[in-house]
Amino acid sequence: MLRFAVAPTGFKECLDAEAVAEAIGTGIRRVVPGALIDTAPLIDGGEGSARQLARSTGGELVPVEVTGPVGDPVRSHFALLGPRTAFVELAAAAGLSLVPADRRDPGRTTSRGVGELVAAALDAGAEKIIIGCGDSGICDGGAGALRALGARVLDASGDELPEGGAALSRTRRIDTRDLDARIRGVDLVLATNPRNLLDSVARVFGPQKGATAEQVEELSAAMRVWGDVLRRHSGTRFGRLPGSGASGGLGAGLAGVLGASLRSRFDVLLDAADVERRLAAADLVITGEGAIDASTALGKIPAEVARLAKRHGKPVVAIAGTIGAGADTSYDTGIDAIAGILTGPVDLADAISRAPELIAAATARTLRMLLLGRALAA
Amino acid sequence: MLRFAVAPTGFKECLDAEAVAEAIGTGIRRVVPGALIDTAPLIDGGEGSARQLARSTGGELVPVEVTGPVGDPVRSHFALLGPRTAFVELAAAAGLSLVPADRRDPGRTTSRGVGELVAAALDAGAEKIIIGCGDSGICDGGAGALRALGARVLDASGDELPEGGAALSRTRRIDTRDLDARIRGVDLVLATNPRNLLDSVARVFGPQKGATAEQVEELSAAMRVWGDVLRRHSGTRFGRLPGSGASGGLGAGLAGVLGASLRSRFDVLLDAADVERRLAAADLVITGEGAIDASTALGKIPAEVARLAKRHGKPVVAIAGTIGAGADTSYDTGIDAIAGILTGPVDLADAISRAPELIAAATARTLRMLLLGRALAA
Repeated sequence: MLRFAVAPTGFKECLDAEAVAEAIGTGIRRVVPGALIDTAPLIDGGEGSARQLARSTGGELVPVEVTGPVGDPVRSHFALLGPRTAFVELAAAAGLSLVPADRRDPGRTTSRGVGELVAAALDAGAEKIIIGCGDSGICDGGAGALRALGARVLDASGDELPEGGAALSRTRRIDTRDLDARIRGVDLVLATNPRNLLDSVARVFGPQKGATAEQVEELSAAMRVWGDVLRRHSGTRFGRLPGSGASGGLGAGLAGVLGASLRSRFDVLLDAADVERRLAAADLVITGEGAIDASTALGKIPAEVARLAKRHGKPVVAIAGTIGAGADTSYDTGIDAIAGILTGPVDLADAISRAPELIAAATARTLRMLLLGRALAA
Repeated sequence: MLRFAVAPTGFKECLDAEAVAEAIGTGIRRVVPGALIDTAPLIDGGEGSARQLARSTGGELVPVEVTGPVGDPVRSHFALLGPRTAFVELAAAAGLSLVPADRRDPGRTTSRGVGELVAAALDAGAEKIIIGCGDSGICDGGAGALRALGARVLDASGDELPEGGAALSRTRRIDTRDLDARIRGVDLVLATNPRNLLDSVARVFGPQKGATAEQVEELSAAMRVWGDVLRRHSGTRFGRLPGSGASGGLGAGLAGVLGASLRSRFDVLLDAADVERRLAAADLVITGEGAIDASTALGKIPAEVARLAKRHGKPVVAIAGTIGAGADTSYDTGIDAIAGILTGPVDLADAISRAPELIAAATARTLRMLLLGRALAA
């Protein structure tokens, strides 16, 4: 009996990773009814990540009420992945979708809820806490989260600054005397997009979080001051450090004050989902993405999955929404074969609406081809 | 080393069978550079069939000048498939493309050139002559071809009728006293579409050969008279006999006067191309068609190829331009796996213009999948 590891990412603007994995599983079972299928849909650390990760690893989702990005309480949660590791989805406490459209002011929204989730994870006994950064609605340099954990962000007079990124332009120093002592004993990891830098985050992400051109300038200036304060506090220059701009500068704040490590989200999240061990246990790995093309080999999830699979000599098939120019370069990453899902001339909207069935049918065709190849050997 | 038999049909309104086979071969060689590939593009008996058949069987194309459908001499040819079998492509002597647009009058065009090709094949020593019916520009009941072989088509006064189908309304009898004696010793086979019937051919095909509504009526009446004459001559009632309407009633004429057998073109042509033996010699059969769908299992070429391949236990892959509703039913015919050629949202015109590369790339992906499956077994 063949054992399958199904580890796709979501098809962008179409289906999330879980739905893709489910469709692939459906396709496998059409051809191999009793197949052993381990589905490990791959998350990007953004909205929905905690729930997916808990489900795919057999972990537990722990509900917590926290301070939302505009100050109102929100029902949030973190995931316990085994007894000692917690996954905090930033978007569940400070996500853009938690900011009402008429209150989108990234100069004022706070990451406080993220710190509250970290505290709750500490309460639950976590010794490693991963924060998935992505889909945030904040730009406060992580100041809110630091406050939730006992730090104080002070102005020149030694007074506590108000919540929000705009006020950071007046920061003079950070007082960590009352910091939650447990934080020093924990392995705090931020799963970030390494291309997010503190120096540019206000300019790049401010507008999508609701900043006007004027606010972007104001926030950029505040982030520069915040970077200077963090440098004096920690000795590290964060401005252009990969991941420092994650979630509106929270990357730099938590690294500078709490010693969090800034890591590439895919490395962290593949680890968190225990992907390598699961690939190693399979006979065949099926990954997938909305498009397989020249960019795939340059660090997209299917390429990372293939790289891990090949450490264990596992065959890898990629199911692709579309197959674009340069797709052949992905064979160098460890992807052995690619199958497209399209069956006839369609427009994009039509393909998207029929994606689950197209993916299932393409997977079934792929299984037939693989089994035929297997029979050829006999 | 894997041996491939590549036996696709043409992709309708897109690429002929030979070009499809070539593209598939290109795709195979991208993955298995030294592959042994036997390409047997499958023809429908129409225009270009003789050339393709000669090429794919290692036969010889014999040039002959004959009388064209409007009476002018045309450079034509037949194919010698081995020393004793000839293939006559009707379209090469009486094809619609040999009728100038301003002389499209199916009441006057003649099949005489077809008879001349048959005579030339007899001169070359053929003992079996296959006539591929298809793409004709005639509707003379085969009277022209019969005349070329020595028969006379007479009116009530015993006078020879003029060329063309319209005059057949005045036929009283057929005189075969001077018929080429060799024709009695030859196995004459017409490769026809069995759905073409003498009773309906003028109505169904007349308009596309240039007949006006009035001419269609005139030709229909002429075909009825011709059918009566053939019945008196041979004792057979041809009106609704499968293939009797092939090439403007030439099917009925040659069956009734020369004893030609009317067979389904696919059976005859798969035989002529020695397809079964070639499939049996392969490790893997790759067929293909413009669309694989519910109609495939109902007698389309890929299904016939699969049926022949399965007599010898050979695995069959179908490369499909599009994969339509009901495609899964084709698995019952012996097709083991299907691969589509489309890689992204496209319109039909775009897909057609890029077909050779899409087919080659899809074949290469298919080979990768098969080889991966083969490796899985190890």
